[in-house]
Amino acid sequence: MARMSAFEDTVRTVQFLSVDAVEAANSGHPGTPMALAGITVDIYSRYLRYDVERPDWPNRDRFVLSCGHASMLLYSVLHLAGYDLSLDELKNFRQWGSKTAGHPEIGHAPGIETTTGPLGQGISNAVGLALASKLAGAEVNTADDPIIDYRVFVLASDGDLMEGVASEASSLAGHLGLDNLVAIYDDNKISIDGSTDIAFTEDRAKRYEAYGWFVQSVDGHDPERVRRALDAAIQEKGRPSLIVARTHIAIGAPTKQDTAAAHGAPLGKDEVAATKKAAGWPLDPFHVPPSAKSYFEPWAKENRARREAWEKNATALSGDRAAKWKALSARSVPEDLLEQLILGDEKKTDATRSLSSAVQQKVAALVPSLVGGSADLAASCKTTIKGGGDVARGELSGRNIHFGVREHAMGAIVNGLALSGFFIPYGSTFLIFSDYMRPSMRLAALMEQQALFIFTHDSIYLGEDGPTHQAVEQVWALRLIPNLDVVRPADGLECAAMWAHALTRRDGPTAFALSRQKLPALDRPATFEPRQMLQGAYIVSDADDPNLVLIATGSEVHVAAEAKTILEARGKRVRVVSAPNWSAFERLPPGEQEAVLGKGIPRVTIEAGRTTPWKGVTGFGGVAIGVDRFGASAPAERLQVEFGLTAEKVAEAALGATT
Amino acid sequence: MARMSAFEDTVRTVQFLSVDAVEAANSGHPGTPMALAGITVDIYSRYLRYDVERPDWPNRDRFVLSCGHASMLLYSVLHLAGYDLSLDELKNFRQWGSKTAGHPEIGHAPGIETTTGPLGQGISNAVGLALASKLAGAEVNTADDPIIDYRVFVLASDGDLMEGVASEASSLAGHLGLDNLVAIYDDNKISIDGSTDIAFTEDRAKRYEAYGWFVQSVDGHDPERVRRALDAAIQEKGRPSLIVARTHIAIGAPTKQDTAAAHGAPLGKDEVAATKKAAGWPLDPFHVPPSAKSYFEPWAKENRARREAWEKNATALSGDRAAKWKALSARSVPEDLLEQLILGDEKKTDATRSLSSAVQQKVAALVPSLVGGSADLAASCKTTIKGGGDVARGELSGRNIHFGVREHAMGAIVNGLALSGFFIPYGSTFLIFSDYMRPSMRLAALMEQQALFIFTHDSIYLGEDGPTHQAVEQVWALRLIPNLDVVRPADGLECAAMWAHALTRRDGPTAFALSRQKLPALDRPATFEPRQMLQGAYIVSDADDPNLVLIATGSEVHVAAEAKTILEARGKRVRVVSAPNWSAFERLPPGEQEAVLGKGIPRVTIEAGRTTPWKGVTGFGGVAIGVDRFGASAPAERLQVEFGLTAEKVAEAALGATT
Repeated sequence: MARMSAFEDTVRTVQFLSVDAVEAANSGHPGTPMALAGITVDIYSRYLRYDVERPDWPNRDRFVLSCGHASMLLYSVLHLAGYDLSLDELKNFRQWGSKTAGHPEIGHAPGIETTTGPLGQGISNAVGLALASKLAGAEVNTADDPIIDYRVFVLASDGDLMEGVASEASSLAGHLGLDNLVAIYDDNKISIDGSTDIAFTEDRAKRYEAYGWFVQSVDGHDPERVRRALDAAIQEKGRPSLIVARTHIAIGAPTKQDTAAAHGAPLGKDEVAATKKAAGWPLDPFHVPPSAKSYFEPWAKENRARREAWEKNATALSGDRAAKWKALSARSVPEDLLEQLILGDEKKTDATRSLSSAVQQKVAALVPSLVGGSADLAASCKTTIKGGGDVARGELSGRNIHFGVREHAMGAIVNGLALSGFFIPYGSTFLIFSDYMRPSMRLAALMEQQALFIFTHDSIYLGEDGPTHQAVEQVWALRLIPNLDVVRPADGLECAAMWAHALTRRDGPTAFALSRQKLPALDRPATFEPRQMLQGAYIVSDADDPNLVLIATGSEVHVAAEAKTILEARGKRVRVVSAPNWSAFERLPPGEQEAVLGKGIPRVTIEAGRTTPWKGVTGFGGVAIGVDRFGASAPAERLQVEFGLTAEKVAEAALGATT
Repeated sequence: MARMSAFEDTVRTVQFLSVDAVEAANSGHPGTPMALAGITVDIYSRYLRYDVERPDWPNRDRFVLSCGHASMLLYSVLHLAGYDLSLDELKNFRQWGSKTAGHPEIGHAPGIETTTGPLGQGISNAVGLALASKLAGAEVNTADDPIIDYRVFVLASDGDLMEGVASEASSLAGHLGLDNLVAIYDDNKISIDGSTDIAFTEDRAKRYEAYGWFVQSVDGHDPERVRRALDAAIQEKGRPSLIVARTHIAIGAPTKQDTAAAHGAPLGKDEVAATKKAAGWPLDPFHVPPSAKSYFEPWAKENRARREAWEKNATALSGDRAAKWKALSARSVPEDLLEQLILGDEKKTDATRSLSSAVQQKVAALVPSLVGGSADLAASCKTTIKGGGDVARGELSGRNIHFGVREHAMGAIVNGLALSGFFIPYGSTFLIFSDYMRPSMRLAALMEQQALFIFTHDSIYLGEDGPTHQAVEQVWALRLIPNLDVVRPADGLECAAMWAHALTRRDGPTAFALSRQKLPALDRPATFEPRQMLQGAYIVSDADDPNLVLIATGSEVHVAAEAKTILEARGKRVRVVSAPNWSAFERLPPGEQEAVLGKGIPRVTIEAGRTTPWKGVTGFGGVAIGVDRFGASAPAERLQVEFGLTAEKVAEAALGATT
């Protein structure tokens, strides 16, 4: 056996740490770490700018393992590169409480830039991360003094390239010419069910050329070719890069190389032994030779110098640039945001999409980190930042992104923008199309990212477009995602409060549900204190010793208020509760909830959507009024009558409520 | 003004019927019907094989308006072609109770083959419809006597081509070489937010070539060129076709042609008048000249002869072919299906994914219409039909489809297979990835299609893969979709019942949630009658005068049974209810529900997922046990302890239940 170079030693170490950890966990994916170890070691030792002592260095290059199932590849390299991820953590792969979860989870170990696993999401996050570098750079860089110009390296699998979300995001990346994005596609001809020949025979290189990418094809196990391709990719201007790297899954495994068997299960004791033997590697698990430990040191030293020079530079900023940098890097939000967002027109009758839009303009003026756009519904959703400029190829200084009819990529790119650390991003479309972007929204919630999803046309009151476009189950389906706050304001004042909430909520995403149709402003008591809205549900109007509580959200609150009048004429004493943020309200202790909802008083909920989950609020005797079937195509006024959502019908139904 | 040909007259009629209907509704999309009228009239008068007197002719060609917002285009042509869709219905566009909904809805008017509107779905349904033609043909055709060989024509917009679901489906269509699929892409350079230059500059033709399609580009307003392209597309063997038709939105409108303003709003009275004037068209609305009324007649006559010849042919089938045809065309299911599916191994301890798989093999033997596949998780989901053969390019006789890692397209293609009328199709993946295909599942429910979605790895008990792969909110989020039945069986006997339910439920889809992990079979009383399971929830084990009811689903039912033992040792009298199909149970009258759940008895629900909606079942005093946070990466046994889902912890929590 020929003596191995330090590079080869390091690659082997990554391969066998991965194999051994999967073996120890008796669960995981060994084949891809084996195949991509060489490329990944090269990226982390020659290309990626990072500093293990400052994992949050704002201008670090980002590495995204889109094929998150190959997590041990990342953990092994992070360990060797010197991140705070011990060998014991590697030995604890996939165990309760370890930093080494089955798929990389941001926050668990330093050096993980995004949570991956659901295929297609990582490469689409990477598009957002690359765009964020360009957008932030356009704000704070000068020609000879860049503050933000980081690059993004992605490893992507066949599965990533098959997923529609990646297609959408890749098309947009090509459109915008994001030349700081380099994706390596692991062309291993194998997916879980076998050869890619059974399902994936399209010409991937040609497809990415059609998107406007710079595409190179290389033998993924030839380091010289890989490095030349990476060099060329980094040099390329005006286009993102795809390097199609032909690899062999589980390379070196005597019987499992190039087989689906090596994808998602341990190699097995005998195969591991045979593989190590063939490689001339010690059989004892988790072996790390000194050459692998020291391999990353020269590059780390270079990187440390880079980071220190950068710090010096960033600290020396002054004037307007310093202010811009401070605002972006801290994602600054004024402390008195709610007060500033109360625009003084709280009596205005209008659609909440319009009222929210007015608040958003104020937010945009106060919060430089706010950027976003729409999936081809900017005018309908009213989410364009006026005077913010458009984000376009070669003009990456704007704040308004045209996502195209690509809701799913919008969600994943919004996540990437948030992950950059510089932006509080938003994406907008009709509420019904939240279904198209749900996987990305779930990841925003899991990753605790401050991402905003602005959904308008939030119910059957969309009207004529009909049931294909009318949200019925979406509000509750979104509320079920842990850590996603769903807000549904009833008027302009609630819009202000919900924006203030979303902007100050640092540890999770917020989804807005806004009306297409105009709504009257609510009448509130003179003693009303706007901060009450932030608890999620509050008393809009009360009665002495109430014997009925109407709880409504969004476009149904004014209906509840009208129903109150009818009911009071029939002898009821009615409290009306508006719940613009039920998600937040659910987090309150029971006592505080009862202070708003009452205790032992019959409850009625009113929301133009599915009622099932509301029945937990109303109890057996209460009444949940809503829409438990698909909508229909007709003008909104007619639908209100047909679906039993007029004040009269609500009042009538409410009379049936008991405790 | 030159005298117009009958073709031109007909095209104008379609254009202005569309414009007038949108004007009358004061809502809708006039620009695309104007642009695509010529192509659509050509398709319906020269290419599409249909018979308005038999809209359900099994071998009719299918027309799919993927850009469903252009619904008036379809309605106008259906009206003129002689379908049962009156001029009054056109005048009633987008009104309550009309057949002419805002977007085409299957079942509302004859000639509508699928419900479209959410972009990308129609063209993906079309892939399923085209595949169904090939699959059915492979079963019943002989070389010189085809029974099923219909073609599918699709009109698709920029939005359709931007959507990831369409990318996925198109890639698979190319992979399978579906040469009976012809898509016309309306390349009008306009989307809602303006020029496609702002978001969609990729080379679409090249992308579709990369997918393996036959691509032609034509001036969409040059009928000769369009016809030559359609001729060539139909001739092409072994590849689906894309015709890139350069068109002008709102062609002929003096100020709105080629503008986004013509996309989604009425042209306005003045513009309508000016457009009609420029075209030499009468100003009175809904004008239909005799030449347009008679234009489709010669083709209708040809088509009627085709259909009658086909009927004769189909009626004359005998022997094995006749039997196969009968089974497919009726989607036959044995009447005693449940009894046949009880395999006699109901005491077996196993994962419900495995138990379901065994039942599915029996179903496959009994129901020739069952076809389906997995999104690259066939071995994990265990949904391959043994001996069923693989569906592959040139070998379209199999029953097992490899969808690739394309969950969303899988959903839409499954819908297309169901829409064909020949198949009861299924698609399988992990439950978490139901999020990726939710828009298609919603449409299956809205369209009342018998589609099966088989989801395995249905909770945190997926284990080591961690929170990105562990379903928490998915079971309830799916239950919220109207008309989708979500079934979560607890053991082999329930698997049999749920398959019997799904196979006999003709008017809607069923989603299965199946366990990765092994579960013990339930003990049932000797008097147990299997049909009880079909009501959705039933008493597994009871007590005399019970004072506590435990209601559980799937993997939590045996935990409830164990908790019962613990609770009875502590003096409780416990009823255990299994609810394998809560969706069906919710449809029962309250009295029948109370017969199972009891009345005035404290209730506890147990399901390893979100609890919020269960609180409507437990009431204020009850206890809902589940998982209201994201999962974690660890072995399943550890997760059960950490998440409080052991029998001991369930019993402890249940003691707190009151009414």
